[in-house]
Amino acid sequence: MRFHTRKWVKPEDLNANHSLFGGRLLAWIDEEAALYSIVQLENTRVVTKHMSEINFISSAKQGDIIEIGIEVVKFGSSSLTLRCEVRNMMTRETIITIDSITMVNLDKEGKPLPHGKTEVEYVRNRIKTAED
Amino acid sequence: MRFHTRKWVKPEDLNANHSLFGGRLLAWIDEEAALYSIVQLENTRVVTKHMSEINFISSAKQGDIIEIGIEVVKFGSSSLTLRCEVRNMMTRETIITIDSITMVNLDKEGKPLPHGKTEVEYVRNRIKTAED
Amino acid sequence: MRFHTRKWVKPEDLNANHSLFGGRLLAWIDEEAALYSIVQLENTRVVTKHMSEINFISSAKQGDIIEIGIEVVKFGSSSLTLRCEVRNMMTRETIITIDSITMVNLDKEGKPLPHGKTEVEYVRNRIKTAED
Amino acid sequence: MRFHTRKWVKPEDLNANHSLFGGRLLAWIDEEAALYSIVQLENTRVVTKHMSEINFISSAKQGDIIEIGIEVVKFGSSSLTLRCEVRNMMTRETIITIDSITMVNLDKEGKPLPHGKTEVEYVRNRIKTAED
Amino acid sequence: MRFHTRKWVKPEDLNANHSLFGGRLLAWIDEEAALYSIVQLENTRVVTKHMSEINFISSAKQGDIIEIGIEVVKFGSSSLTLRCEVRNMMTRETIITIDSITMVNLDKEGKPLPHGKTEVEYVRNRIKTAED
Amino acid sequence: MRFHTRKWVKPEDLNANHSLFGGRLLAWIDEEAALYSIVQLENTRVVTKHMSEINFISSAKQGDIIEIGIEVVKFGSSSLTLRCEVRNMMTRETIITIDSITMVNLDKEGKPLPHGKTEVEYVRNRIKTAED
Repeated sequence: MRFHTRKWVKPEDLNANHSLFGGRLLAWIDEEAALYSIVQLENTRVVTKHMSEINFISSAKQGDIIEIGIEVVKFGSSSLTLRCEVRNMMTRETIITIDSITMVNLDKEGKPLPHGKTEVEYVRNRIKTAED
Repeated sequence: MRFHTRKWVKPEDLNANHSLFGGRLLAWIDEEAALYSIVQLENTRVVTKHMSEINFISSAKQGDIIEIGIEVVKFGSSSLTLRCEVRNMMTRETIITIDSITMVNLDKEGKPLPHGKTEVEYVRNRIKTAED
Repeated sequence: MRFHTRKWVKPEDLNANHSLFGGRLLAWIDEEAALYSIVQLENTRVVTKHMSEINFISSAKQGDIIEIGIEVVKFGSSSLTLRCEVRNMMTRETIITIDSITMVNLDKEGKPLPHGKTEVEYVRNRIKTAED
Repeated sequence: MRFHTRKWVKPEDLNANHSLFGGRLLAWIDEEAALYSIVQLENTRVVTKHMSEINFISSAKQGDIIEIGIEVVKFGSSSLTLRCEVRNMMTRETIITIDSITMVNLDKEGKPLPHGKTEVEYVRNRIKTAED
Repeated sequence: MRFHTRKWVKPEDLNANHSLFGGRLLAWIDEEAALYSIVQLENTRVVTKHMSEINFISSAKQGDIIEIGIEVVKFGSSSLTLRCEVRNMMTRETIITIDSITMVNLDKEGKPLPHGKTEVEYVRNRIKTAED
Repeated sequence: MRFHTRKWVKPEDLNANHSLFGGRLLAWIDEEAALYSIVQLENTRVVTKHMSEINFISSAKQGDIIEIGIEVVKFGSSSLTLRCEVRNMMTRETIITIDSITMVNLDKEGKPLPHGKTEVEYVRNRIKTAED
C-alpha cells in the first residue's frame, strides 16, 4: 500500500472528546479515494458508490499527522475497488481501515462508463520524470 | 424516523461530477449522529466507533436541500446504535442509508462509560416548553 | 414553532470571549430561513430582504448544541415573513430571537415573483412518507 | 465613515440566486464590528449585544469586491455603539446599512466592564508610525 | 502605505506552535494583493506572477488583530508591482514584509493585457462620496 | 524529490480568473513543509522562518489534481531548509517551485532548539511496517 496524502490534525478537525472527528476523517478518505481513482482512470467524473463497514480503531489528537494509504483491490469494467488504511504518523497506530471502497467511472451524462484499465499505472511512467 | 438537520448543497459540497461529494455527506451524517447521541445520552464525550456498509443510492446537486434522519436501533450499556437516512427534499429521493452507526459514551479518561439510558427521550419533555 | 437544524458549537465558531460568535449565529439563521423558505415556496431563488432588530440574549460555549426554530409570521404575495428563535439544547436557554425575517421570492431575472402560497405545507404530505 | 476591510466575493459566499449570501455578509459585519471595538476599547473581550433592523438594499455577485465601513455612534460606559455600511466597490452601490450595533466590553468573568473611552482613537497615534 | 483589511487571528489560523500559521498569512496577503490590483486596474482578471523572498519577522497569537498594508512599487505595462507589510495591531510589531509582489493583468484568454494605468487612483474620487 | 500530498482543485480554490488561487497554493505548500519538518525533526513545534522568491509558472483549473513535492536542501543545527515543487497531475506541468523554505525547530518557549538531525529518515524504518 502506498501512503500519499498527509493531514495535520487542527482544532477544527476535533470532536467534543478532543480527538479527531470521525466525519472529517471519512471526508478525507473519500477525497483521497476520488483523487486516486481520477488519476488511475484518467477521468475526472468518478464518484463513490459503496463503502464496506468502517471500524474506528484508534484516533488522533491535535497536532498529530496522519497519512492516508490506498491500494487497488479490483478493477471492474466501469468501477474500481480500493482498500484504505489511515495511520497516525506520531503514534504509529492504525486509525481506520476500510476494506472496500467502490468508485464508479461515469460518462458526461453520469452513466457508468467502461474505463478499459486493468492494472495500476504509475504517474511517474506517464510523466517521464525521475521521481524518487 | 425524525428528520432534523437540513443542509443546503453549495458549490464547496460538490465533487467533480457536479453532484454532492460523498465525503461531505459522510461528515454531515457523522456530526448529526454525534449531536443526536450527545442529546440522548446527556454527555458531550461521545465518539463514533463503527459504521455498517454505506450505499450511495442517489445524489443531490447544487441548490438542493437535504435532510438527515436518525433513529435509535439499540441502547447498549455504554453505546448507542443509530440508523440514518438522508433524503433529498427537492427530488424526494433517498440519498443514502446507513443501517447501523455505533456511538460510544466515554468518561473523562476516554474509557467507555455506562450511560444508564434505555429509551429515547424528547428534549421537549426535559425543557418543559410546548414544541409543536 | 418547529426546531429543525441543530449545530454543534466548535472552536471555529467562537469569539474572543470564548462564546459563540454572533456573526456565525446570524449566518446559520439566515441559511435556515432561506432553506425553510425554499421548501415552503418551492422555489430555490429566495433571498433575504429585511431582518428586524436582533437581541443577543444569551450565548453558547464550545461543545454546546443549539437548535434553530422557524415559524411563519405572514405570507405576502411575493414574500414570506418568518420568526426565528435559537435555543441552547444544553443550558435550555434562548440565545436569540428575531421577530421578523422577510424573504423574497424571485424569478429568473431576480425580480419579485408572486408565490401563490398562503399557508405552511408539510413536506411529509408532499413526499407521501410516514414521518414520525 | 472609514472603510477598512475588503472582501472578495467567492463561490462559497453566494446564495441560490447567485448573489452574495446575506448570512455571510452579516458574519463579515459582525467580525468587523468586533475588530473595530477591540482596537478602540483595547480589550479583546468584546461581544455583540444588539443590532438594529437590517435592510438588504442591493447585493453583489461573484468576483465583486466589497468594503465594510464602521463609525462610532456613541460611547456608553461599558458599551460602544457603531453604525455600519457595506459598499460594493465594483457597482459603487450601498449593499446594506445597519444604524446601530451595540458591542459590550466584558471583564474576565464575562460581566460588563466600564472601558473609560469617550472618543475614537487612531492606532496611528498609538503606534507612532507615519500612516498616510 | 495604506492599511486596509484587518483579520482576527482565530483557532483555525494557528500552527502547532500556537502562533499564526504562515500559510494562512500568505493566503491573506495574496488575496489582499489581488483585491488591491483589481480595484486599481479596474479588471477582475488579475493573477499573481511572482513574489520576492519572504521573511517571517514576528508572529501573532489567537485573539490578535493584524492589518495588511499594500503600496504600489511600479506600474508595468500589463503588470503591477506591490509592496506588502503586515502588522500586529496588538503588539504593534511588523509580522512580515514582502518587497515585491508582481500581479499581471489578463484578458479573457488569460494573456497579459496592457492596463493603461500609471498612478494610484483613489476609489473615493471615482465614487464621488465623501469618505473620511 | 518525493511527492506525497495531493489536492483536488475545488471551486473555493479559484481566483477571479478561474485558475488556482495563488494564496491557496502557498498555504498548501507551507502546511506540507511544516508536516514534512515535523516528521523529520520529530518535534511538533516547527515554524516557517523564510521563503526564497516564488515564481508562479503555470496554474491549474477546477477538477485538476496537483501534488506537492518536498526535498531537503540542508540540515542546519536548529533549522531545516527544504525545496518545494508543485506539479499538476493532469497537465503534467510544474506549477510552482520554491528553492528554499527555511523551517525552525523550537522549544517550548518558542526559542530555536538544536534538533540533532543530519539526514532524511524514512518513517517506514521507524514504523517497522512494509510500505511499498
